[in-house]
Parts: sequence; structure tokens; C-alpha cells
Amino acid sequence: MRVRVLGVDPGLTRCGLGVVDGGSGRTVHCVDVGVLRTPADEDLPHRLLAIADGLEQWLDRHRPDTVAIERVFSQHNVRTVMGTAQVSGVVAVAAARRGLPVVFHTPSEVKAAVTGSGSADKKQVTTMVTKLLKLAAAPRPADAADALALAVCHLWRGPMLRRMAEAEARAAQLARAHRARLAAAAQQARTGGAP
Amino acid sequence: MRVRVLGVDPGLTRCGLGVVDGGSGRTVHCVDVGVLRTPADEDLPHRLLAIADGLEQWLDRHRPDTVAIERVFSQHNVRTVMGTAQVSGVVAVAAARRGLPVVFHTPSEVKAAVTGSGSADKKQVTTMVTKLLKLAAAPRPADAADALALAVCHLWRGPMLRRMAEAEARAAQLARAHRARLAAAAQQARTGGAP
Repeated sequence: MRVRVLGVDPGLTRCGLGVVDGGSGRTVHCVDVGVLRTPADEDLPHRLLAIADGLEQWLDRHRPDTVAIERVFSQHNVRTVMGTAQVSGVVAVAAARRGLPVVFHTPSEVKAAVTGSGSADKKQVTTMVTKLLKLAAAPRPADAADALALAVCHLWRGPMLRRMAEAEARAAQLARAHRARLAAAAQQARTGGAP
Repeated sequence: MRVRVLGVDPGLTRCGLGVVDGGSGRTVHCVDVGVLRTPADEDLPHRLLAIADGLEQWLDRHRPDTVAIERVFSQHNVRTVMGTAQVSGVVAVAAARRGLPVVFHTPSEVKAAVTGSGSADKKQVTTMVTKLLKLAAAPRPADAADALALAVCHLWRGPMLRRMAEAEARAAQLARAHRARLAAAAQQARTGGAP
């Protein structure tokens, strides 16, 4: 079963978009990647509208099953964070209006998913995304690579979380069986060895 | 000429909305006031969508000429600020999509416009809004009163800023005339009193 994810690295100046198809196992395929740009001298409502309109075109063109958005944190530059949060809200509403599931992943979850380390730098993320998706060239700018990484993260995190949950359930079951055996042994010791 | 402003105090849990008509001079009239609420246990995309849908209904019903939104600042609670910024982005796009002008006013601009002090508390804002709009009862909750204050602020700030600009232009003109007179007097003194 194919699952198509649109990854969005929200931003006012550059909003990264990456569409990735996930197949069986860890198979991933890059469908499209790009960046929506808005000029810094345009007013905020029209910048947000331009991104909203551009996003609608991507949703029409690629019909993703899920939209994965990078979770915004308060960073150093408050002004930038506000714009980024506004874009992420606009993207989430556009997806929700189409009935698409919307998920948020943190930057460190994304980095860990594609590089194995939650503290990897942008260059590592770009390198791994290029490799994992077998791209002829590294996606530029970094926002485009981040959007692809986000989509891959979403495709891989779902099964990984499921496997972890299964492993934990199995561990809990083994622990219960072990405790039951211990209790039975203790009971047997008390009753003087009778089975 | 009547100008209708929709003031929006953005928030995920409570989004305040207030529609105010401004007439000649400082005449203001409250058309509608209310709050859009979303449950905290709903997921973020659906909370944002519920606010977007609620806002569309207000825009359809009241057909404002302008939408005034409270400018979000990074405050103590980063989580709350992010949600507020996302709502403000969603509201700005909805208004821009209808071709409506969108303006942002800071909380202190709003407070100064309705109470005379940029550091007034919520109670003062509610009291003044109730008085200025001649309401039978104080609007509740505070978010609703804030939305009305925002609309009043926008109606009054435009003309006020225009008057200030005009006064400054007049002052600059007077200063130029004064300098010219001084220069003429100095010239006259040098040439020995001949006019």
C-alpha cells in the first residue's frame, strides 16, 4: 500500500514542500520538492495568502494522504518564529479543510529519523535525504531538503512507533509470565515441593 | 461615511470577535460581539479549522471593511503564543482572501486608544469599551471586550495618525518660514538696514 506524505517546513520567506511516497518496508520515493517564496517587502496578510494559495496548488496536484508539518519552537528571533507559526497554522487549516490528517514532528525527531542523531546539522540532513531518496542532486535550499526529511520521518516514524509499542507489549507480557513463574516456584517451595 | 471594522483578539481556546461601525468624528457603534471557543482536548488542526469556519460566518454576516488583529508577542507561555500566532495567521489569510485590508495593532496601542494609557489593565479596557460603545452590560469574557477595543482603536487610530501627520507637516512649514524670516533679518542687518 502506497502512502503519500506532503512534508512542510513552514516559513514566510521560504516555505519548503516535499512530497514522498512510502511503500512496503522502508521504501521511499521522492515525487516533488520545492519552495514557496514570498517577498519580505510584501505585507504579512498577502505573504500568508500567497503561501496558502501555493499550498492549495500542491495539494491539488499531488493529493497527499497526510500532511506533516515541522513543529515550531520559540527560538532566538521572535519575529521569525511568529511568521513561522502563522504559516504553520495556515497550512494546518488548509489540510484539515480537505479532511487530511495533519501531524507535527519536532526538528530533532526529523533529524533522528533520517540521520540517526537528533542533533545532526542541516548539511547531514541534506546529505541523508539525497541518499535515502536516491536523488541525482542535493535539494536546495535547505528548507526543501527539510520538507523531504519531514515526509520521510513521518513515513518511518509511524511504523517505528508501532514496532516499539509491540516490543513494549511483548516485554510486559514476558515480565508477567516471569513473575507468574516466580510466584509458582515460591508457592511450590512453601508447600514442600509438591507440584 | 460608515466604516465597519471586525476586531479579532486571536486565541485557540477563546478567540474574541467584535464588529464596530465608525461614523463621522469619533462616533462608534457596536454591531456584534462574541467569542469562538474550541475545546482544549481537540487536536490543533481541527481547533484551527473550527476558528477559520467560525470566522467565515462572521465575515459573511457582517461584511466588514477592514479586519484589525491584535499583534502577538512572545510572552511567558510559549505554547500559548504559538497557538495564538497560528490563529492570527489563519484570520489574516481569510480576510486577505476576501480582499479586505488587514491591520495589526499592539496591545498597548489598543489600551492607549480606549483608556488613554498603554499600560491599562483588562478591567479598565472593559469599562471604557462598555462606556464608549454605550453597552447595557460589560462584554464578557475579556477577549470579547478586547476585540471591540481593537476595532475602536483601529477606527480612531487612522484619523489620529492622519491628524498627527498633518500637524507635523504644519510645524515643519512654520519652522521653515521662521528660519526664512531669521535669515532675511540677518541679511537686512548685514546690509545696514536697507529693506
